[in-house]
Amino acid sequence: MIDFPVDFPDGSLRIIGLGPGPAEWMTPESTALLAAASDLVGYKPYLDRIAPQPGQRLHASDNRVEIDRARHALALAMEGRRVGVVSGGDPGIFAMAAAVFEAVEQGEPGWAALDIKVTPGLSAMQAAAARIGAPLGHDFCAISLSDNLKPWALIERRLQAACDGDFVIALYNPASKARPQPIHDAFTLLRREKAGETPVAFARAIGRKDESLVLTTLTSADPGLADMSTLVLIGSSATRSLVQAGRPLLYTPRSVRSA
Amino acid sequence: MIDFPVDFPDGSLRIIGLGPGPAEWMTPESTALLAAASDLVGYKPYLDRIAPQPGQRLHASDNRVEIDRARHALALAMEGRRVGVVSGGDPGIFAMAAAVFEAVEQGEPGWAALDIKVTPGLSAMQAAAARIGAPLGHDFCAISLSDNLKPWALIERRLQAACDGDFVIALYNPASKARPQPIHDAFTLLRREKAGETPVAFARAIGRKDESLVLTTLTSADPGLADMSTLVLIGSSATRSLVQAGRPLLYTPRSVRSA
Repeated sequence: MIDFPVDFPDGSLRIIGLGPGPAEWMTPESTALLAAASDLVGYKPYLDRIAPQPGQRLHASDNRVEIDRARHALALAMEGRRVGVVSGGDPGIFAMAAAVFEAVEQGEPGWAALDIKVTPGLSAMQAAAARIGAPLGHDFCAISLSDNLKPWALIERRLQAACDGDFVIALYNPASKARPQPIHDAFTLLRREKAGETPVAFARAIGRKDESLVLTTLTSADPGLADMSTLVLIGSSATRSLVQAGRPLLYTPRSVRSA
Repeated sequence: MIDFPVDFPDGSLRIIGLGPGPAEWMTPESTALLAAASDLVGYKPYLDRIAPQPGQRLHASDNRVEIDRARHALALAMEGRRVGVVSGGDPGIFAMAAAVFEAVEQGEPGWAALDIKVTPGLSAMQAAAARIGAPLGHDFCAISLSDNLKPWALIERRLQAACDGDFVIALYNPASKARPQPIHDAFTLLRREKAGETPVAFARAIGRKDESLVLTTLTSADPGLADMSTLVLIGSSATRSLVQAGRPLLYTPRSVRSA
């Protein structure tokens, strides 16, 4: 099944994207690296998706602090292990890749000499977009609403800019139990700036058994639908609704007429 | 190898993402759908990547007009064929998925009843980001610089908004032989708005044999490096350079300090 060389020597670290969930959306490169690792480090819900190889050590973390997980992985690589850092979605998008390089910069001098590579994966917005139709068919931006790691003023500035530029907007980390407010505050801003009939989608756990999809408008949307497994998409002024074989969809045309 | 059900009945259309190029970056779902199609429709350089099944009909297009390709694919599905519309990267991002739904809306009444689904793929910015380090680790936007389908004034408005919001910026379709100017005009705007030391990457054909990567700064960048196979990445004010095992990288930290 694996018919390409896997570059994963002892004492190296690979940051591996699992994609949104199902095996048919995980790349062969990620599958091969998962199998070749001596140690896998990750947030427990992600490691739970993997069938470990014999002798493989799993380091599951309950800890939501990504930088601590990155430091642990780097220390294991320094011991000569083949360390896979496991990330849901694409590790390069709001995920573990940046945390690892941040940990390197702030950490032990030896870490800067480690062989570290990133393997991409499908991100939540791509799974959501495929189910919704083609909402990301034209210029878009992706904003994390988590204010654990950045001031809310910067999030507001970016939401405002996204409206000014009439981008399609993908909102990551819209809400959590500990942090229910951001998505409500974001909708207050979006409703002030954008037309009420702007299409909105709440795409939850797309690709997993409990996936759900709600298509609505900015006026009618209930921001309370969003949880930590939800990707929220807000259309641009060009995003259109259509019904395809009885199924409501959204798409953003590639062509824009001159004003 | 394919151990999941493939949903691809006669008289349906699947929009299939090939990813950036190499087989190890194409999802198993895309591989399975490519094998199950009776007809594959696509721009010739993408179809050339595929080893056709016996009896499979390939409809290679030299035509850059995506909407015509979409209409052809829809007509084949109406004849009862299992039609795969093949797209490089992610068909949902600046690619064929939006073109198909646009063609449906403008086309024959029967097309609205067709069973049409989209399968995601890795997009060029994700391949580029993996090679560069983790430049998309924080809020970002993706802008196509092609002014074939939209007025340049809208592109300028979006570049301005991307600067106002201090987003990381991924530029698709930065230049082509027929259209060399957009990337130069974009850099003129970006240099006016952003600091000269802002990290910039020109990531060309990442994942393919002739891949190349240039990391530089906004002041030093030569926009003429960009061609139609290049993804250009512009950092935010937080994007950092580091040297990892002798290799220069860029990453954007997830955390932002309060101003």
